[in-house]
Amino acid sequence: MAGSTFGTLFRMTTWGETHGKGVGVVVDGCPAGLSLCEEDVQKYLNRRKPGQSKYTTKRKEDDQVEILSGVFEGKTTGTPISMAVFNKDQHSKDYSEIKDVYRPGHADYTFDKKYGFRDYRGGGRSSGRETTARVAAGAVAAKVLEELGIEIFAYTKAVGPVQIDSSRFSKEERDKNALYMPDVQAAAQAEAYLQEKMRELDSSGGIVECVITGMPVGIGEPVFDKLSANLGKAILSIGAVKGFEIGDGFAAAQSVGSENNDDFYNHNGKIEKKTNHAGGILGGMSDGSVIIFRAAFKPTPSIAQPQQTVNREGEDTEIVIHGRHDPIIVPRAVVVVETMAAVTVLDLLLQNMGSSLEGVKNFYRSDKK
Amino acid sequence: MAGSTFGTLFRMTTWGETHGKGVGVVVDGCPAGLSLCEEDVQKYLNRRKPGQSKYTTKRKEDDQVEILSGVFEGKTTGTPISMAVFNKDQHSKDYSEIKDVYRPGHADYTFDKKYGFRDYRGGGRSSGRETTARVAAGAVAAKVLEELGIEIFAYTKAVGPVQIDSSRFSKEERDKNALYMPDVQAAAQAEAYLQEKMRELDSSGGIVECVITGMPVGIGEPVFDKLSANLGKAILSIGAVKGFEIGDGFAAAQSVGSENNDDFYNHNGKIEKKTNHAGGILGGMSDGSVIIFRAAFKPTPSIAQPQQTVNREGEDTEIVIHGRHDPIIVPRAVVVVETMAAVTVLDLLLQNMGSSLEGVKNFYRSDKK
Amino acid sequence: MAGSTFGTLFRMTTWGETHGKGVGVVVDGCPAGLSLCEEDVQKYLNRRKPGQSKYTTKRKEDDQVEILSGVFEGKTTGTPISMAVFNKDQHSKDYSEIKDVYRPGHADYTFDKKYGFRDYRGGGRSSGRETTARVAAGAVAAKVLEELGIEIFAYTKAVGPVQIDSSRFSKEERDKNALYMPDVQAAAQAEAYLQEKMRELDSSGGIVECVITGMPVGIGEPVFDKLSANLGKAILSIGAVKGFEIGDGFAAAQSVGSENNDDFYNHNGKIEKKTNHAGGILGGMSDGSVIIFRAAFKPTPSIAQPQQTVNREGEDTEIVIHGRHDPIIVPRAVVVVETMAAVTVLDLLLQNMGSSLEGVKNFYRSDKK
Amino acid sequence: MAGSTFGTLFRMTTWGETHGKGVGVVVDGCPAGLSLCEEDVQKYLNRRKPGQSKYTTKRKEDDQVEILSGVFEGKTTGTPISMAVFNKDQHSKDYSEIKDVYRPGHADYTFDKKYGFRDYRGGGRSSGRETTARVAAGAVAAKVLEELGIEIFAYTKAVGPVQIDSSRFSKEERDKNALYMPDVQAAAQAEAYLQEKMRELDSSGGIVECVITGMPVGIGEPVFDKLSANLGKAILSIGAVKGFEIGDGFAAAQSVGSENNDDFYNHNGKIEKKTNHAGGILGGMSDGSVIIFRAAFKPTPSIAQPQQTVNREGEDTEIVIHGRHDPIIVPRAVVVVETMAAVTVLDLLLQNMGSSLEGVKNFYRSDKK
Repeated sequence: MAGSTFGTLFRMTTWGETHGKGVGVVVDGCPAGLSLCEEDVQKYLNRRKPGQSKYTTKRKEDDQVEILSGVFEGKTTGTPISMAVFNKDQHSKDYSEIKDVYRPGHADYTFDKKYGFRDYRGGGRSSGRETTARVAAGAVAAKVLEELGIEIFAYTKAVGPVQIDSSRFSKEERDKNALYMPDVQAAAQAEAYLQEKMRELDSSGGIVECVITGMPVGIGEPVFDKLSANLGKAILSIGAVKGFEIGDGFAAAQSVGSENNDDFYNHNGKIEKKTNHAGGILGGMSDGSVIIFRAAFKPTPSIAQPQQTVNREGEDTEIVIHGRHDPIIVPRAVVVVETMAAVTVLDLLLQNMGSSLEGVKNFYRSDKK
Repeated sequence: MAGSTFGTLFRMTTWGETHGKGVGVVVDGCPAGLSLCEEDVQKYLNRRKPGQSKYTTKRKEDDQVEILSGVFEGKTTGTPISMAVFNKDQHSKDYSEIKDVYRPGHADYTFDKKYGFRDYRGGGRSSGRETTARVAAGAVAAKVLEELGIEIFAYTKAVGPVQIDSSRFSKEERDKNALYMPDVQAAAQAEAYLQEKMRELDSSGGIVECVITGMPVGIGEPVFDKLSANLGKAILSIGAVKGFEIGDGFAAAQSVGSENNDDFYNHNGKIEKKTNHAGGILGGMSDGSVIIFRAAFKPTPSIAQPQQTVNREGEDTEIVIHGRHDPIIVPRAVVVVETMAAVTVLDLLLQNMGSSLEGVKNFYRSDKK
Repeated sequence: MAGSTFGTLFRMTTWGETHGKGVGVVVDGCPAGLSLCEEDVQKYLNRRKPGQSKYTTKRKEDDQVEILSGVFEGKTTGTPISMAVFNKDQHSKDYSEIKDVYRPGHADYTFDKKYGFRDYRGGGRSSGRETTARVAAGAVAAKVLEELGIEIFAYTKAVGPVQIDSSRFSKEERDKNALYMPDVQAAAQAEAYLQEKMRELDSSGGIVECVITGMPVGIGEPVFDKLSANLGKAILSIGAVKGFEIGDGFAAAQSVGSENNDDFYNHNGKIEKKTNHAGGILGGMSDGSVIIFRAAFKPTPSIAQPQQTVNREGEDTEIVIHGRHDPIIVPRAVVVVETMAAVTVLDLLLQNMGSSLEGVKNFYRSDKK
Repeated sequence: MAGSTFGTLFRMTTWGETHGKGVGVVVDGCPAGLSLCEEDVQKYLNRRKPGQSKYTTKRKEDDQVEILSGVFEGKTTGTPISMAVFNKDQHSKDYSEIKDVYRPGHADYTFDKKYGFRDYRGGGRSSGRETTARVAAGAVAAKVLEELGIEIFAYTKAVGPVQIDSSRFSKEERDKNALYMPDVQAAAQAEAYLQEKMRELDSSGGIVECVITGMPVGIGEPVFDKLSANLGKAILSIGAVKGFEIGDGFAAAQSVGSENNDDFYNHNGKIEKKTNHAGGILGGMSDGSVIIFRAAFKPTPSIAQPQQTVNREGEDTEIVIHGRHDPIIVPRAVVVVETMAAVTVLDLLLQNMGSSLEGVKNFYRSDKK
């Protein structure tokens, strides 16, 4: 499997390179009858779009999505939803500086070795632009989940060493600052940190956190297709992600059982957990608590400092990457994390419908009426 | 997909519950012609077996594997390799204490909600015993990789707050101590820490680290089936894992591009990287460096202290879990991490064979001779 | 994919060779809460078992199934159901006559070429014995379907030139004669024909027909996973099947639209078709009519006459196959067709549950109560 | 799985409805380095295009393909190849006659029942126009196969009762007549037959036959993913196909073993079969002989005669389908059969590369050089 498809029942297949005709996605398995228009998708794409602030590349892209199939009279028909973002200008640019030279931290070398050659215009298929297609698919998944009362909300948790403070957490604040941080004070500190890095011709890593609310209990399959495992794969498939953790994550490795176990209790007639070290997943299945996970992003590899590297012939050389690049990947990746989670959750939620015979019988009984 | 199958070309399907007739696995897609006997698999299972030391449950299990199909005259035939570990004694035990009560940190509650009821004998399908089957499959994958010069080596990196020191790292030491730590001094400290936790009727978390050497460049598919994403899913599908990171992982989030980028250079005529912050994967594909990743395990949820919880009716109650349980999951999980990685790597390696037309043509040309 | 797995949501993985330790199957994705015991499966296996009549090989096999996992207190738990039929006696037999010689009509040659060598004891993995595992899995699927009011009924339609006459069709008769023909008169003629072939040291082909009743409308996915396409794959994956047709099948190729179209009409308030040339499938989806399809089986390739062939070195030679072989595959294949259809239908039925947003919302609403 | 994806390693995902913005396909897993331009694909599409003769609908479509991704400097890059055929004019037409009425022989009724409503413009997703996307994908597969010396050639074998005569078979003739029959005399008779049907406002069924030459031995997996089973699924997934047979097919059911078995012999140092009743497949794997299979197509369901049916409310009514429709599906389906076969064969051929350890070792040895 060349691996451009993700999901089993709700399934997306992406295509496109950064400097080609465009990027797109085919969403297969979306339930029929969902109200869907381009604006529903566009509002997600706008959060990923370049040129939003001084912390994102200035490359002017409208990133206007077109729905090419699968929607009729404003509703999904159950057939594949094809969406594309076509590139407005494909003006030929000079790529000679990276054509034969391997940029550190990029996929240039591995691409060449795997396929024998590569599309050397920008990152080709490995460019962050590929995530545009994922966001479009995830926007559809998120809309289905919304109908079921499930909300997925991601944000920038850390920019380099600057972390948000949970006591100052404000959902509304997230969309008010350029860094998508839900903490106005941390956002200001992070901006200062980033400007310093930009002056140093350097870049910064960071962390995205994501919370999922409204989940039914039991979503996720107990062995290999655990909700946690599938979320992990989804998030680790985003280009610059180097780490993934759920609930207490790596901190749990330093904890003890009596601390880390979340006691159950009867909360107004409902079974709940007193704490949530588990991050909302027990045995790979959603446990009804809020699901919370984090992704670690490495610093943008494209920096303006000269770097040592080799060319295709294996000769030592120096590279200077021109052009304006995001000093940090995280702010624009927030919506990518959110939508990848949406696809994963919806896919497992649909798979879960056949879990018990009683559920299947009820479904077909009601269906026959 | 009920999710008991993992892999695309090299594919394992596991079955079995902790207190049933046994556990097993069907391995499909193993190349024909590999020398394979039960001892090849058994030596991996022995590393996971209970009763090895005072840090593992005393439950006496021989965990003797039987190969039921797919091997003829000592070699794999290309057909499914079915392997099983049958339980010797299925003496009926008293499970009344956990039958109707949800153990904190376990999958009892989510299982009940998903399926309507559960096999309440031990953890049923969610027990760590299920990993026996994975280890058997992974032993086969590891043997194939060995033939290709690829070695996967995992070990305990941390027990609670006690970490190994890389300056004292010794591969041989790993198999000499009860905790599978490759650092004799850290192992001693960790044992002391664990004994303290055992006295406190508590348990500890920890970290497993894994290195892969000898990888060809270009293994892994650039978008969703990145080597990092598939390794992440494989490892996060192990019961108690709450975090996964590759290369610098979460530390990369606090780094800067000029530090985190690994410069390429010509090393005696071969393209190599001066550093390995990336952990051997660029753009989702192996880059020829050593692959290195870590998994965070939560503390064993079964502890002997009384815990607050609810029963199936949702009434508050207290539970005391009897029996001897591992005070830490990590040592026995080392081989699970190693073998899950083996399955993942072999699967992507087989998928990679069709990457370039030149490779496909060469294959069928040589095949025809 | 080495191809020993079938199905997406309801999924079986088979293993085992004819003269190895046994054959078995892992069924993953069976809804929890189904009453299931070994007898439920055994009664299907008994219909496939050798030694039932003079038209089946005398090889004495008990074919006793064991359920190894996935059932607890008489009900499926939602976890994989592992089933095995172990061989009682694996007495070493002399296979020298077929070890280095390719039997015409068998997979000996292709196996050798694909894998480099083969398990030469009987047909190895390509033996009809592999279907034992499918029947066990299909028995489970059939039981789920029964709960939904769906019945699958297959029978021998033709033995060589002898066909059943629909005017004499009797469901009860099927299980009364050795050939599983639902027409007592045709069965007698067919027996006479077979005895003639046996005297001539020859074998016969035949046709199995299968009808499915009680299907909801809309099962099957409109493009590649049409119900007809998946049934076709299921049936064509049975060793000796050379043809598959649905409804009028090949006869439709000689028909005209005004004849072949099935008019809809209001039948007591229900939409029905006046005729059923389509065989119950329109646009790849079940249309509420009876589903009817047929499979053509080639004659048993193992015949007692001397045959011309080559050995592994490619030298011309003659082969005489000893031992008693079924003079026709069809009677024992009836239950294989029936159960492969059951697996296919159940798998698509589970996939169908996510087709419309309304259905998904209703499911999770009722689930939450 | 909503079933718009076909294949495992070479994999296509189609999208689009007949009267929407267009149809398209994403091809994932195509080996890198294949020369590919739009003309390579277009020449296949032209064979499927309407308006070629009086036996195809006059709907003027240019069916001009655009390659949107995956090709760089004239060669495939190993990344997804997205192709689309955009509709030139989407002029709004009056569909009121079929909006609320179910056309006999079409998927209108089943679509409505499955999804709750449907895109009533033409056949929507179930229209033959969807096959445009398959042909584009198959053209790519065919080009890869060509590089490996494998050729797939399909043609019209029968139009209603008129069959080609093998003694008059001429490959060149196929592309010279409007019906794609490789027999000039049969083509003339078939044209006469079709004109009669057209005068009667009726339509005809027919048969497509397909031969594959140059196949290596051993392609196809022995159990569920037999080459025959996967070809069967591929072909039966084409809208109007009601039957599939390989080699002697249904005739084999009336044959005897001594006739039907194909003896092996040494033919100038090569192992070959004296006859080919098997159609080139033994045990589900290619046996080195020519592969030959047939597909039965039902008559075009859209006929100009008035037909009895019901509307959405289930009331009896009459329908008259206006517009010009193909009196037979077969001629334009020839290339669909050919390209679906190409996708199937290439997919299994890529999967086969991992069959033996020796092959895998050789691959990675040569790869490292």
